[in-house]
Amino acid sequence: MKTIRMALIGYGNVGQAFARMLKRREDYLKDTFDAKAIITGICTRSRGAVIRENGIDTEALTDDMFDKDKDAFAVIESGEYDVMMELTPINIMTGQPATDHVRRALDLGKHVITANKGPVAWHYRELRDLAKEKGVLFLHEATVMDGTPVYNLAKETLMGCEITEVSGIFNATTNFILTEMEKGVSFEDAVEEGRRQGFVEADASMDIDGWDAAAKLTALMNVLMDVQITPLEIDRTGIGEITREDIENAGTQGKRIKLLCRGRVEGGRPVGVVRPTLVDEGSLPTTMQGTASYVTIDTDLMGATTIIEEPFEPEIDHTAYGVLSDLLRILTETKE
Amino acid sequence: MKTIRMALIGYGNVGQAFARMLKRREDYLKDTFDAKAIITGICTRSRGAVIRENGIDTEALTDDMFDKDKDAFAVIESGEYDVMMELTPINIMTGQPATDHVRRALDLGKHVITANKGPVAWHYRELRDLAKEKGVLFLHEATVMDGTPVYNLAKETLMGCEITEVSGIFNATTNFILTEMEKGVSFEDAVEEGRRQGFVEADASMDIDGWDAAAKLTALMNVLMDVQITPLEIDRTGIGEITREDIENAGTQGKRIKLLCRGRVEGGRPVGVVRPTLVDEGSLPTTMQGTASYVTIDTDLMGATTIIEEPFEPEIDHTAYGVLSDLLRILTETKE
Repeated sequence: MKTIRMALIGYGNVGQAFARMLKRREDYLKDTFDAKAIITGICTRSRGAVIRENGIDTEALTDDMFDKDKDAFAVIESGEYDVMMELTPINIMTGQPATDHVRRALDLGKHVITANKGPVAWHYRELRDLAKEKGVLFLHEATVMDGTPVYNLAKETLMGCEITEVSGIFNATTNFILTEMEKGVSFEDAVEEGRRQGFVEADASMDIDGWDAAAKLTALMNVLMDVQITPLEIDRTGIGEITREDIENAGTQGKRIKLLCRGRVEGGRPVGVVRPTLVDEGSLPTTMQGTASYVTIDTDLMGATTIIEEPFEPEIDHTAYGVLSDLLRILTETKE
Repeated sequence: MKTIRMALIGYGNVGQAFARMLKRREDYLKDTFDAKAIITGICTRSRGAVIRENGIDTEALTDDMFDKDKDAFAVIESGEYDVMMELTPINIMTGQPATDHVRRALDLGKHVITANKGPVAWHYRELRDLAKEKGVLFLHEATVMDGTPVYNLAKETLMGCEITEVSGIFNATTNFILTEMEKGVSFEDAVEEGRRQGFVEADASMDIDGWDAAAKLTALMNVLMDVQITPLEIDRTGIGEITREDIENAGTQGKRIKLLCRGRVEGGRPVGVVRPTLVDEGSLPTTMQGTASYVTIDTDLMGATTIIEEPFEPEIDHTAYGVLSDLLRILTETKE
C-alpha cells in the first residue's frame, strides 16, 4: 500500500475539518487508490510546528506537541511530506506569505494544494510554470466557491472548449448581507449575524469592499483564460455604499441588487469588473439566497454552463472538501 | 502522430454537427494529444453505409458513396475503427437497436460513445461491466442535458463523495411547453413552435408523457448511484393533463408548475419520480426558461451542487459537444 504524506501549513477550521473528512474516507482511499494518507507536519502561527515522520494522530493533538521555535518554513523545508497544503488566512493585498510557502514547496519538488487564493490571484503563472518544471501538481480547487468544482468543471469536463467569459456571484458574505437587507435587517446587524454564523471574518472589509470577489475573479481569469492580472486591475466597487433605500427602490422596479462579477478578454486585454448590479426579479442571480454563489462559464463550443454552490450548511465544510478533492486528484494522476 | 478512427452509427443533426466541430478542433487535437481523428465509417438507416479505412471527407459526402446493402452491423463488424459512436434516434421503450450496437462494438474491444440514452437507461450495468472486461471505455455524456457535463461533474470533480440524490428539470421540451403556456400560448401551439425550432420530435408523446425524463433519471441513477432500474420502474406523470387553468391557479398562489425529477435510494431500494410539481415563484426551477434544464447532485461531503444548461442557442450543438468531450476523454485516458 502506498503512503501519501501531507504537511498542513495552517490548521484552523479548514485544516481540522479536512483531517476529520480524511478519516471518514480512509476506506475509500484504500479501496480506490490502495493508499493511506497521513499528516506528517502541522504548523500554526500561534502554536508553532509539529513534525512526525510516521504521522500525527490529529485526534490526540495537544499544545505541548508543538515546537514554538519552528515556523511554516521549518515544516516546508523538513521535506517530510509529499503534498504541502497551504491553509493559512489570506492577505488579499499581497498574497503573502502564502505565495512564498507555495513557491518553496514547489521548488523542493512537492505537490501543492492551496485553499488560500492569494497565490492564484497574484502569482498564478509563475507557480504553474514552476510546478510544471518540477513535474508536480499545483492545485487550488478550494480557492473559488469552496469545494464546488469550478476549476475542475472547466478543465476536466469542458475540455476542448475555449472559455470566453466567467461571471457570477463569487462572494458569500456580501450576498448574505444583501439578502438580509432585503428582509429589513440593517447592514451592521447583517454583518454581525454573519459573524455569529462563523463565515464573516473579524475584519469584514475585504468582503464588503469587493476585494475578495476581485481576488476570486482574478484567480478564475488567470487559470481559465490564461491571462496575467492581479486584483488591483479589477474595476471594483463594493457594497459599502448600498443603502436600504437603494434596495427598496430596486424592489419597486421589480429588481434586486446583487454583487456581480464578470471577466473577459476584450481586444486582447483582460477586463474584470466587480460591481453591485440591478438584476430582474426571477432571474438566476436573484435565486442566490444568503451564502449561495454561482459561476457561469461561457464557451465557444458549449455555450454557457453554470454551477451553483448552495448556502452553507453548518455540518458540511465545503472548503475542506475542495482540499480533499485536490488530494484525490493527486492520487489519481500519480496512480501507477 | 496517433490516428484515432471513428465509426458513426447514425448521421443526423448530431453526427453532422460533430463532424463540423471536429474540424474546428483539428489543431487542438494535434497540439494537445498529438492525434488526428478521422471518420472511417458512417451509416444511416435510409442511405446504408460508407466505410473508408483512410477516412471519409464528410464535406464531400454524397449519396452514391453509400452502399445500400450495408447496415449498422456491417460497419460495426468491419472493425475499421477505434471508437464506435451510437448516434441513432432513441427508442425509449426498448433501448434498441442501440443497445445491440453498443454491445457488439464493446464485444469487439472497441471504445463506445453513445448519445443515445437507451443503452444507459436499460442496460447500463451489463455494458459497463463488458467495457471493463474488454479494457475499453463506454462513455455517454451527451445522454442527459446534452453536452453539459453532468456525469463528468459527478465522476471527475465530486470524487470521493457519496451521491445521495439526483434531482432537477431534465426535459427541455416539456419545460418549453410549460413556459409558453405561462405566456398564454396553447399546449398545441407550444408543441408546434418547438417543432418549428427543431427540438421537438414529430412524435412528441415521449417528452409529454414524461418518458424522456424518466429515461434520463434512470440513466443518472444507474450510473451515479450504482443501482439497476429501467424507465418502467419510475413513478411517472407527464404534462399532458396540465391545463391553462392549472397554470393560472398556480400563478395566483405565487407558484409555477415544473416537471421535476427526483431519484434516491430509500431503504436500499431505488426510488425515482417524474411529476409536475408546484414550485415557489423565484426558486431555482422557475428560472429555467424555455429549453433550459438543470441537475442537482446531493452528496454527503459537499452538500448539493447544481449544474445548469442554458436554453439552446441555434448556432451551438450542445449534444455534439457531449460526443466530442467523450472523444477527448478517450484521448486523455489512452495518452501514453
